[in-house]
Amino acid sequence: MIAVLTGGTGGAKFVEGLLEAGSVENLTFIVNTADDLEWWGLYVSPDLDSITYAAAGRLSRDRGWGVEGDTFYCLQAMADLSEPIWFHIGDSDLALHLVRSNLLAQGKTLTEVTAAICRKLGVQVRILPMCDSRVETRVDTPVGELGFQEYFVKRWYQDPVRSVRFTGAAEAHPAPGVIDAILSASAVLIAPSNPITSIGPILAVPGIRAALRETRATVTAVSPIIGNAAVSGPAGALMAAQGLPVSIAGVAEAYHDFLDLLIVDHSDSQMARQLEGSGLRVHCTSTLMKTIEDKLKLARTVLQLLSGEEAGEAVSDFP
Amino acid sequence: MIAVLTGGTGGAKFVEGLLEAGSVENLTFIVNTADDLEWWGLYVSPDLDSITYAAAGRLSRDRGWGVEGDTFYCLQAMADLSEPIWFHIGDSDLALHLVRSNLLAQGKTLTEVTAAICRKLGVQVRILPMCDSRVETRVDTPVGELGFQEYFVKRWYQDPVRSVRFTGAAEAHPAPGVIDAILSASAVLIAPSNPITSIGPILAVPGIRAALRETRATVTAVSPIIGNAAVSGPAGALMAAQGLPVSIAGVAEAYHDFLDLLIVDHSDSQMARQLEGSGLRVHCTSTLMKTIEDKLKLARTVLQLLSGEEAGEAVSDFP
Repeated sequence: MIAVLTGGTGGAKFVEGLLEAGSVENLTFIVNTADDLEWWGLYVSPDLDSITYAAAGRLSRDRGWGVEGDTFYCLQAMADLSEPIWFHIGDSDLALHLVRSNLLAQGKTLTEVTAAICRKLGVQVRILPMCDSRVETRVDTPVGELGFQEYFVKRWYQDPVRSVRFTGAAEAHPAPGVIDAILSASAVLIAPSNPITSIGPILAVPGIRAALRETRATVTAVSPIIGNAAVSGPAGALMAAQGLPVSIAGVAEAYHDFLDLLIVDHSDSQMARQLEGSGLRVHCTSTLMKTIEDKLKLARTVLQLLSGEEAGEAVSDFP
Repeated sequence: MIAVLTGGTGGAKFVEGLLEAGSVENLTFIVNTADDLEWWGLYVSPDLDSITYAAAGRLSRDRGWGVEGDTFYCLQAMADLSEPIWFHIGDSDLALHLVRSNLLAQGKTLTEVTAAICRKLGVQVRILPMCDSRVETRVDTPVGELGFQEYFVKRWYQDPVRSVRFTGAAEAHPAPGVIDAILSASAVLIAPSNPITSIGPILAVPGIRAALRETRATVTAVSPIIGNAAVSGPAGALMAAQGLPVSIAGVAEAYHDFLDLLIVDHSDSQMARQLEGSGLRVHCTSTLMKTIEDKLKLARTVLQLLSGEEAGEAVSDFP
């Protein structure tokens, strides 16, 4: 069984590759929920949604979020009613939020609701929220403290970031199955997600970081940073705000206490050698995912490395 | 000022005619809310919606409910999630239910929410729910007691009706403005709505029936019955279940304690004479509303009668 920590669009792309590569019955996804928001009165969980849609074969590949081919008539009608529409929800996408909000209102946990939605959509992988209680990423900026979606979607992550915090994290408990998935996994993967706001909240839930240190499985991360910038999104600015170098070294530092193997892009081979010198195993490959073929190729490379790892092979690819 | 009691599709058609006939600033609609339901976790008020959409010029004339030209992508996605879809909500229509549900959840009353939605849609007439608390029409049938939408929409009103009751009505209070609208009106109109399940719940709210008896305005009803059947819907079966004749005499009986003038179809002129013999004023005209021209013509006839009424003219049209 492979446990995958994921969040954000980078995570969703990587998950698409893993799903395309097959053997879905062995995958457990542990998903960031600190980007969740209440929108139009509904509970929206962008990262759970993306992974769920990816697993159901419905994720929009153009947009990287929401349902492929979705329409936006309700959104237009919300605009006519003077409601905010900066967070975009399509008409088909809306159905999932209605069902989830309804089940939550009936007293079900987010874990139960996620499982129920997966069953309804015929999803075969296991998708777990990081926790069942509310944890919220808050981004401190010169215009004030913003919710993550306000910072990211509404304001296009243009505000300088002073700091990031995860309200509710200290009181949260890992969702049922999360710790066991990490401890009993044959391999743990950290998707090429934003280390601060996609993986960071998962690690902030008490017990998860300790389980990553404790597990006997190799913990492998794919770097979301190539060179000195994130492939997409605000990971660079957020890492800098948290005092991390914006490079694969920063990714290594964010995960320093549990990371066994870091997968980086070929173009980072020089810094990869330096990291290897400091004791971390690093593998260079093509990490940029533009097409489904790229995603599949990266996933296959990672899965092959994990098989070799289990067979006790050395993984460093430096000649 | 004209106060109009209305509900159902017959009511909506009549309202369309009144709005088309102009002088909207003088109209207050008092609307049945006993057909309201919770659907997909949202508060849906079919009669308030139809009147609101009619007043906003958005009511679908084909369907008689919902938004003109609406799409149904969310509904399709709900079906994919194994959710019930027998009650149809379009994508644009959904926006109104989201906004209303959200405002209600914030603690606003249905009256306040209705006014807010009207403002947002540029509606100039005044639309009042009959009350702010929950009143529910329950229809007793051989398969058990059904909610009104279950009886009407889900089961196509095919079940024999034993009786009808309005839960919560005895404890309800007329919404703010309702009693005053009736007492201060220059004319009160009862739309050609189902007397049992559209007008009946309004009359069951304590104080409203008394206000109709008390008002100095002429109370005029348009009969939803032509011959011995309802123009549309289950009014006939429901009247019979309540022990009323299915005819204009039944309509007269349902409103006997406050009705001044009954407007009926030409084809009922014979029974109209009999009713006049028993003391009620009756006017015969074309009451069937198939086209917008029909609706406008009926509205104009009614408004002319009311003007004559105010001027002290006799209204009986029997030669």
